Amino acid sequence: MAPAVRHEAMRAGNLAVVLGELDRHGPLTRAALAENTGLTKTTVSKLVGDLIEAGMAVESGAVRDGERGRPGVAVRLSGHRVAALGLEINVDYLAACVVDLSRSVRVLRTQAVDNRAASPQEVIAGLRDLGAAMLDEAAGLGLTVAGCVVALPGPVDRLTGSVHSAPNLGWKDVAVTGALALPVPVLVDNEANLAALGELWFGSGASLGDFLHVSGEIGIGAGLVVDGALFRGAHGFAGELGHVVVSPDGPACRCGGTGCLERYAGQDALVPPGQGINDLVRRLQAGDPGAAEACARAGAALGVALTTAVNLVDPDTIVLGGIFAPLYPWVSGPAAEAMRARLGQMRAHVPTLAVSRVGGDAATLGAAGQVIQRVIADPGAYLDLTAGGTLG
Amino acid sequence: MAPAVRHEAMRAGNLAVVLGELDRHGPLTRAALAENTGLTKTTVSKLVGDLIEAGMAVESGAVRDGERGRPGVAVRLSGHRVAALGLEINVDYLAACVVDLSRSVRVLRTQAVDNRAASPQEVIAGLRDLGAAMLDEAAGLGLTVAGCVVALPGPVDRLTGSVHSAPNLGWKDVAVTGALALPVPVLVDNEANLAALGELWFGSGASLGDFLHVSGEIGIGAGLVVDGALFRGAHGFAGELGHVVVSPDGPACRCGGTGCLERYAGQDALVPPGQGINDLVRRLQAGDPGAAEACARAGAALGVALTTAVNLVDPDTIVLGGIFAPLYPWVSGPAAEAMRARLGQMRAHVPTLAVSRVGGDAATLGAAGQVIQRVIADPGAYLDLTAGGTLG
Repeated sequence: MAPAVRHEAMRAGNLAVVLGELDRHGPLTRAALAENTGLTKTTVSKLVGDLIEAGMAVESGAVRDGERGRPGVAVRLSGHRVAALGLEINVDYLAACVVDLSRSVRVLRTQAVDNRAASPQEVIAGLRDLGAAMLDEAAGLGLTVAGCVVALPGPVDRLTGSVHSAPNLGWKDVAVTGALALPVPVLVDNEANLAALGELWFGSGASLGDFLHVSGEIGIGAGLVVDGALFRGAHGFAGELGHVVVSPDGPACRCGGTGCLERYAGQDALVPPGQGINDLVRRLQAGDPGAAEACARAGAALGVALTTAVNLVDPDTIVLGGIFAPLYPWVSGPAAEAMRARLGQMRAHVPTLAVSRVGGDAATLGAAGQVIQRVIADPGAYLDLTAGGTLG
Repeated sequence: MAPAVRHEAMRAGNLAVVLGELDRHGPLTRAALAENTGLTKTTVSKLVGDLIEAGMAVESGAVRDGERGRPGVAVRLSGHRVAALGLEINVDYLAACVVDLSRSVRVLRTQAVDNRAASPQEVIAGLRDLGAAMLDEAAGLGLTVAGCVVALPGPVDRLTGSVHSAPNLGWKDVAVTGALALPVPVLVDNEANLAALGELWFGSGASLGDFLHVSGEIGIGAGLVVDGALFRGAHGFAGELGHVVVSPDGPACRCGGTGCLERYAGQDALVPPGQGINDLVRRLQAGDPGAAEACARAGAALGVALTTAVNLVDPDTIVLGGIFAPLYPWVSGPAAEAMRARLGQMRAHVPTLAVSRVGGDAATLGAAGQVIQRVIADPGAYLDLTAGGTLG
């Protein structure tokens, strides 16, 4: 490596160290940053200057320096310039959000639309319009969007930007990234994975230990977070909780199997076509016994599938998200009971059920959050961004 | 840290670096060791001298040094002095092995015995006798045993050396380590976890990518190996494949649940009491249609549970071990068919089934292998061992 190249690589690495430290422990004085990172004060001052110029950090007023009692100027992560776009295609809605570098949610939109009635091309065109409108809104807020992640309801190929199969949409090998044609870098990921990360970064994730996040939609997915990172499996397809077999002789599933959890506890099993989860919640709140029974049946099936998940991956906590967030009061009891009955004798610790803090927005937020993680892991690659406009 | 303490810690760390390098890439000359580890040749020579004196390494004759073409004396890991004891309590047998530092299996014994008919104390006394006999044999071979791990058929507490629950033995919270009273350090672990590690270290594990190893016994357990390490879950209870629900309304299981995989594919579901797997294999080889049908049913149930495991943890390969190794020709086809039917539509890659290379001995070998891993990770802690006799 030539000296100049090596110097650039070292600077990029140090920028990431300083921004990462501000992210985890800021606000911090330059002196504290030097102490925590082992870099010299001169180096830290230069790096902080670069981050401030790029709009990624900002001075946040005088603070008393803990150790020595001398007052100093603290620096913190700034959300005023760099942001991320999160998009989601699901079966019956499109969603989008803009999240800034400090992980504040600046814009959040959901469009109810039956994507089963449209072709993949039409759905992607609809998402493009939504995404373009969000980029305009971000620009209006003075934000520059560093990139975009699209949440998709099925196993994806992150390298080619396509979804292998989204049985609830009737999609098979659909290329999304290229077709979307937005003026920012676009990646794709599975919505259940992103929802788990959304709960980790924007919900109560950090306090949950190792957790399994369940995303209830028309389909049901799950994301397992171990030591603060997503467990993806060998091909990135881990967490397909919706196709865990609840009863092998049960009804046929769109995945080609039979008796999958989705057929017992997915949205289509709970509400008639044309109705939404809010209609069901209203009936439940009004004391409708049929609605309560449907939720109890779904909860019991969910408990069977979660028993299996606990037997296989042994999480600390299970977080119920998506439609299971508003339905939590009616679904969680029967699910917990099924788990206790099946697991209580073998295990000292049966994982607790908890309700998602971010609910239906988890995947969209996780999508934007993934871009923010990338910027914080390598801010050097995004410094030019803020010189003018979005990244081409 | 005082300088002397720091020097000792550094020496211990360097011993581990050198022995680890010999384990992964030996035989190597001292010059190659210095190059690969970044240590000076003087330091490497001293460390190699210590390892040779402790019987952990040995000179293995002149080799041509790859890079420079100069001949040198190569050093390799030696199995002639340090060894490990692996023990296993299972439902219908006890097993033991002695494995040396180079992972050669020096002694391997299995005793068929119905441990359900005996109290935990009687079973542990039987294991003590077996273990003591093995230590004598090891001594007769000039081997010093660094430690022992006991494989147990249920979730364990590795800190207290006890098994929480082994439903197929009727055991509940049985302390094993203390009761065993062998003159070497003893730890416990779950037999399915150890069997997966046994396949990794003594079978075809390293070539399998991320794999799920299935241990068929009276109970059925599994161990998931990701990036060469066991995935244990938050409480160490991951991989309880036997209690994955195949059919929620199925027969009652000893775990307190119903319709667990064990009830369809465990040894008791396949052979009548008093008979062993060898009897079943003889009937299968003779073309007994009832035996073939029982295996096909078990294989189909196994396929349903493995479908669920693939949906949740997405391994590259699934290795069938324990009783499923001799039954592989009759069980694997129906299992693979069930997986293909349920997974083929959603996934480009349905994991391959493979037969265990180590079969029924996997857990016992994995138990001894775990001790060997500990010695190689910290040889400094075991140098005194070889001064005389076993560690107290």
